[in-house]
Amino acid sequence: MSIYRVLIDANDQKGLVHKVSSLFYSHDLNILTNSEFVDKDNNKFFMRSVVDGDVDAQELQKSLQELLPTTSKIDVVSPKKKNIIIMATKEMHAIGDILIRHEAGELEANIIAVISNYDELESLVTKFDIPYITISHEGLDRTAHENLVIEALSVYKDVDYIVLAKYMRILTPRFIEIYNNKIINIHHSFLPAFIGANPYKQAHKRGVKIIGATAHFVNNNLDEGPIIAQEVIHIDHAYSWRDMQRSGKDVEKVVLSRALKLALEDRIFVYANKTVIF
Amino acid sequence: MSIYRVLIDANDQKGLVHKVSSLFYSHDLNILTNSEFVDKDNNKFFMRSVVDGDVDAQELQKSLQELLPTTSKIDVVSPKKKNIIIMATKEMHAIGDILIRHEAGELEANIIAVISNYDELESLVTKFDIPYITISHEGLDRTAHENLVIEALSVYKDVDYIVLAKYMRILTPRFIEIYNNKIINIHHSFLPAFIGANPYKQAHKRGVKIIGATAHFVNNNLDEGPIIAQEVIHIDHAYSWRDMQRSGKDVEKVVLSRALKLALEDRIFVYANKTVIF
Amino acid sequence: MSIYRVLIDANDQKGLVHKVSSLFYSHDLNILTNSEFVDKDNNKFFMRSVVDGDVDAQELQKSLQELLPTTSKIDVVSPKKKNIIIMATKEMHAIGDILIRHEAGELEANIIAVISNYDELESLVTKFDIPYITISHEGLDRTAHENLVIEALSVYKDVDYIVLAKYMRILTPRFIEIYNNKIINIHHSFLPAFIGANPYKQAHKRGVKIIGATAHFVNNNLDEGPIIAQEVIHIDHAYSWRDMQRSGKDVEKVVLSRALKLALEDRIFVYANKTVIF
Amino acid sequence: MSIYRVLIDANDQKGLVHKVSSLFYSHDLNILTNSEFVDKDNNKFFMRSVVDGDVDAQELQKSLQELLPTTSKIDVVSPKKKNIIIMATKEMHAIGDILIRHEAGELEANIIAVISNYDELESLVTKFDIPYITISHEGLDRTAHENLVIEALSVYKDVDYIVLAKYMRILTPRFIEIYNNKIINIHHSFLPAFIGANPYKQAHKRGVKIIGATAHFVNNNLDEGPIIAQEVIHIDHAYSWRDMQRSGKDVEKVVLSRALKLALEDRIFVYANKTVIF
Repeated sequence: MSIYRVLIDANDQKGLVHKVSSLFYSHDLNILTNSEFVDKDNNKFFMRSVVDGDVDAQELQKSLQELLPTTSKIDVVSPKKKNIIIMATKEMHAIGDILIRHEAGELEANIIAVISNYDELESLVTKFDIPYITISHEGLDRTAHENLVIEALSVYKDVDYIVLAKYMRILTPRFIEIYNNKIINIHHSFLPAFIGANPYKQAHKRGVKIIGATAHFVNNNLDEGPIIAQEVIHIDHAYSWRDMQRSGKDVEKVVLSRALKLALEDRIFVYANKTVIF
Repeated sequence: MSIYRVLIDANDQKGLVHKVSSLFYSHDLNILTNSEFVDKDNNKFFMRSVVDGDVDAQELQKSLQELLPTTSKIDVVSPKKKNIIIMATKEMHAIGDILIRHEAGELEANIIAVISNYDELESLVTKFDIPYITISHEGLDRTAHENLVIEALSVYKDVDYIVLAKYMRILTPRFIEIYNNKIINIHHSFLPAFIGANPYKQAHKRGVKIIGATAHFVNNNLDEGPIIAQEVIHIDHAYSWRDMQRSGKDVEKVVLSRALKLALEDRIFVYANKTVIF
Repeated sequence: MSIYRVLIDANDQKGLVHKVSSLFYSHDLNILTNSEFVDKDNNKFFMRSVVDGDVDAQELQKSLQELLPTTSKIDVVSPKKKNIIIMATKEMHAIGDILIRHEAGELEANIIAVISNYDELESLVTKFDIPYITISHEGLDRTAHENLVIEALSVYKDVDYIVLAKYMRILTPRFIEIYNNKIINIHHSFLPAFIGANPYKQAHKRGVKIIGATAHFVNNNLDEGPIIAQEVIHIDHAYSWRDMQRSGKDVEKVVLSRALKLALEDRIFVYANKTVIF
Repeated sequence: MSIYRVLIDANDQKGLVHKVSSLFYSHDLNILTNSEFVDKDNNKFFMRSVVDGDVDAQELQKSLQELLPTTSKIDVVSPKKKNIIIMATKEMHAIGDILIRHEAGELEANIIAVISNYDELESLVTKFDIPYITISHEGLDRTAHENLVIEALSVYKDVDYIVLAKYMRILTPRFIEIYNNKIINIHHSFLPAFIGANPYKQAHKRGVKIIGATAHFVNNNLDEGPIIAQEVIHIDHAYSWRDMQRSGKDVEKVVLSRALKLALEDRIFVYANKTVIF
């Protein structure tokens, strides 16, 4: 008996649930959980079913593809550990949280490498026997530095996700295109408030009473990619921007790990620069 | 074209989604939203579908009953205003919130009467042209007083829900049996902490850092019925129990109104002294 | 024995707490609560003490003014109901919440009038025997309409706060100057995200996972005045912008009432376009 | 120039703030932050001031003691790293979070050792060059095992706090007496709900919609010591108790680390089985 996650992203039409559930039934599959969402405005249909039964994944995928409109994206996923690469700069809280979860077996993931533009985190990362690659940006322009990063990444095949755990460099469109919808970033503000540099300073100046963090896929426009998860904490006038930064770390790491977990469990669909999350 | 909420509470078996969605398809119904939950441990299946199409409600209900196991409870509901009666004592915040929502058209409900053991709320309730019935408990034992309440209630047919908006009297099993799973209460604590009288005093004595409120159906055991909704707020050492009580009001009214809304929209299934909420 | 709220807004200097508490002691005053905040960057000191004792308010104010630097703002307030005017448009939730709190005696306030550019809320407001003034903006330019509002307001002396409970008109600088730091607005987004019109539509388009509301004092720049209170709720992809709007109402009313309560209890200091809240 | 935290726990009397702030002033100390709390019911006064200036800690303490009633507890603390020992069993999330914060320099603490009744965490802890002591309880009764733990602990002098990071053994009164108000535990429920074993199973059976975690000092009665911090998350019917356990881990670690931080920064006063937290 195997367990599969069946992911369907299709144009909406009457009877889709009926068709898919009938096909499951004809393959003698048991539905463990089932989530659907119809976006009427955009005529879109999304479905994530977890099924178990005695059928081959490729056969199931093939029969689903025969059944459904040719425009649909269909994916039959066998739950297994995905390969992730973490990129970070100097801060320890976000990557540290992922390392501990990884070590505890909480994540459906193998961390195959960590890449940083500094060596501050090397001592931490190598404790966990994970390769640490320092690619300094000093003396290099953005493109030259990024080319070195892309080269280092190219060694690793089957990279499912790149996690930017407080990687403080802006990526170029070229990079983003290579890893389209595979790069998860944590932005240290409640987007779309305080886009750009030092959101905590901006938040302090504005006198907000809540600060937050946003995990999102990265696209060409800085901090404007599809949002996966957000969380906030209450603050007050007594917080300096450094206090906000300190307190913000706890939100940042929680939100990034939550987003990563959603991605690893194939719970995220991306469309129209937004996410559907089951 | 009519919209229906189809509610299914059945023993689990393979193919239920397939069977139901096929029946919808054969009736040319469109699924607007669909929620399912399988409780493996108890072998239970719950489904709430909102469908639209050109079919008669009774016909749809009949064909679903023919399709599904005889043990199933099936309900095809046409969205319309439900009849509710509010019971309260003296406090204004919970009933006030419902009255304003009612007046604003936020609720799928008609408030057909308010019953209280005091007349403090009469001036407020009658502003909204809602009948207010005072049934004082003074000089009466619990049963005698409750008999008067039951008598007053018996005038109203088709009562869908009785909302206890800070009704500070304990109901007897007889009352509860008459309105089984139709009585929604707000308890001013985060159940199961602080069952019984004056939870805020208990909370203050215990020195908790969070207080809450719980909306639940009422059953024979005080404060032990199926929980519908809960919410909390953070407090600190500076709160006296009266401060907690004051702040707690905001949570109480929010949670009670949320639970009522869920009930009015047929989103709650009750089993095993718990709720499934879609 | 009288209770006073002593409010001090001064440039910081060593010994301020000592000086003030010594003066309290010499007047045989008892400190019930005491809150201070020093903003080192701006060299500012804020203090709110609640004291009780047998002294005249004006005498206390005079002796504090003699004691403290001439630049300080000092206020000795006797807790009593403040006069507020509510301005609203058509939506019932925010004003309804304030009306119920007013009726329940929860607020240290008299609502002396409600002004609206529509008559939709008249039936609700007059239930509570509060004057309702409709000043339609139809056929009038912004200034002409606002002049009528200012004229209507001018009848009421001693207006402590004007509460914009979803008043959907933009105020001109002239209006704001008259009621500087006395106008409390509820903006239906988590500022500074989604400034301007229809924040829920903006939020839906952006695909955020949290929506919020912000209560703030109104200044010349739309939605950019000092923030008093903020709150958020989690949403998901299934929320249309109208769903967000519906759910947002609950946050809006909670935040506005919270901000109003803070103002009525003299807990807010305003400086540098921010608030200090004790 | 030195910074001190001045901690005062006294019976309330008029003029305490005046006396203390005058003494600060006479020592030419600058008040950076100041927090007070008066519990009228119990006639108690608490104060935490952070001051800087050019005075000796012992001299300051002595002059405060001369000034204040003999019943008062006065403590002048120079901020420095405190010594903590972590006790854990097998779970990695709570201890892992503390280890990362320790490594990142977020905590005012030295972790001088970890003690466990299993060796599961040894590999993690020793990565960080922290001594790991396994004291198996197998074949030993509670007292015999605990005696070994006490013996192991006795090697370490100046232990400021013992952190029970999911240490799944019940401590005897003898142990608790030795480290009175120095043992911080994380209980995996929103106390006082679900005291005792497997709170998640209890919570699942009860059908709650919110689960939580509570950090508290340990006293003789299991799970009944003074509460330091609490936090909750929303759940729904689809959560098995194991899902709750998984999700609960994130709350547990956040709450424990928050409580530890409060303790390390001398922000907690304990009285009447409650905490005052500044």
